[in-house]
Amino acid sequence: MALRPIPAVPAETSKRTPARKGLRFLQNAKKPETVQRILLTAERMFAERGLAGARIDEIAADAKVNKALLYYYFGSKRELHRHVLERLFALLLTSVEAGRQNKGSPKENLLGYVNGYFDFVSRHPNYPRLVQREVMECGKHLAWIVDNYLRPLHQRLARAVERGITAGEFRRVDAQHTVTTLIAMTTFYFAAAPLLSELWGRDALHPRAVEGRRRAILDFLEHGLFRARTRSR
Amino acid sequence: MALRPIPAVPAETSKRTPARKGLRFLQNAKKPETVQRILLTAERMFAERGLAGARIDEIAADAKVNKALLYYYFGSKRELHRHVLERLFALLLTSVEAGRQNKGSPKENLLGYVNGYFDFVSRHPNYPRLVQREVMECGKHLAWIVDNYLRPLHQRLARAVERGITAGEFRRVDAQHTVTTLIAMTTFYFAAAPLLSELWGRDALHPRAVEGRRRAILDFLEHGLFRARTRSR
Repeated sequence: MALRPIPAVPAETSKRTPARKGLRFLQNAKKPETVQRILLTAERMFAERGLAGARIDEIAADAKVNKALLYYYFGSKRELHRHVLERLFALLLTSVEAGRQNKGSPKENLLGYVNGYFDFVSRHPNYPRLVQREVMECGKHLAWIVDNYLRPLHQRLARAVERGITAGEFRRVDAQHTVTTLIAMTTFYFAAAPLLSELWGRDALHPRAVEGRRRAILDFLEHGLFRARTRSR
Repeated sequence: MALRPIPAVPAETSKRTPARKGLRFLQNAKKPETVQRILLTAERMFAERGLAGARIDEIAADAKVNKALLYYYFGSKRELHRHVLERLFALLLTSVEAGRQNKGSPKENLLGYVNGYFDFVSRHPNYPRLVQREVMECGKHLAWIVDNYLRPLHQRLARAVERGITAGEFRRVDAQHTVTTLIAMTTFYFAAAPLLSELWGRDALHPRAVEGRRRAILDFLEHGLFRARTRSR
């Protein structure tokens, strides 16, 4: 998968990917830092208010660009939204892949993936909200997001789990459910961070709290909750 | 905590609870089945579109009641929304409490709570979406939801974890993070069900799939992923 800096375009795209009008033009934009600033501002606005609630005027004003220039680069609010999602998903795959330990054991490999996923989500707090919005609104993006990004990601993690089972390092678990649990333990924490902060009376996104969460995930993954002697089988 | 059928009113309410205008009147409504129908219709609409997107006209039409009657009972869209959330959270606490095994071991107790939580979420698929919306919009409801419902729930689960540690049945884990993980494994699955269905090419909410998820959660909780001999400590 070829990942270009901004915007990222997967080498193989699903047939369900929408038309990429103006994308080539965008890749050759003379001011990549302007494109980047627009994308980051739009990411925040779409996360806060959704596709329907975000306003192009405000995105342009916050990114300190002319509204006409924004339309010149991105064509429409919907296209801008799609670019925001594509950029994030491409970064997600890169981050998870960076965690891979090619020469490691299945266990080290899986821990690498889990750490890579945790790194990505902790550095992109808008990600869970943007995905949740797509899911809740049964967004039209769902099919191509799944085809181009989430299915490859899940398959990679599921294969890592299966290799560990074959090697005798992991118990005989359901790989799909295990991957779902690994993703859930990280994603839910960051998606629910405002609620957890209110609940605990401390900032769940403070760097120390975030590292505490990472340790808890790796610990739960490694040991499970119950001592061996209390297990029923 | 006293739980009345519809709408549910916690016996002790936080000082941050908004004014309950017309609530007493609502409890004595002559047609509880009409009130119930309005609440269920509103729950679905608020889950699909959020507080801002849902329209009273449509809720009244779908619930087959006169719009004036709906206002007579609930006063405003915001009040109706609050009643929907309160009803769900009261049912959540009841369901989790029903899973409690008073004479059981700490492990049986915790499994009872986890099953009770799973039962509730699997029977109320709108719940994760409604809570996610509150969290994402940093809803004004967040403080009283946490004070009246989520903090008691988390504290109960955390105490169950701590009792298990004291009894030597559980490892020495961080109770808060463990509770977060238990909640995450269930909530994330149902919140992400449309995405998982697309990903797996099968209905993640099919009764068989739901029971598969329950087994996976209980299994992961009981055993952890790695065999004892591959553990680093």
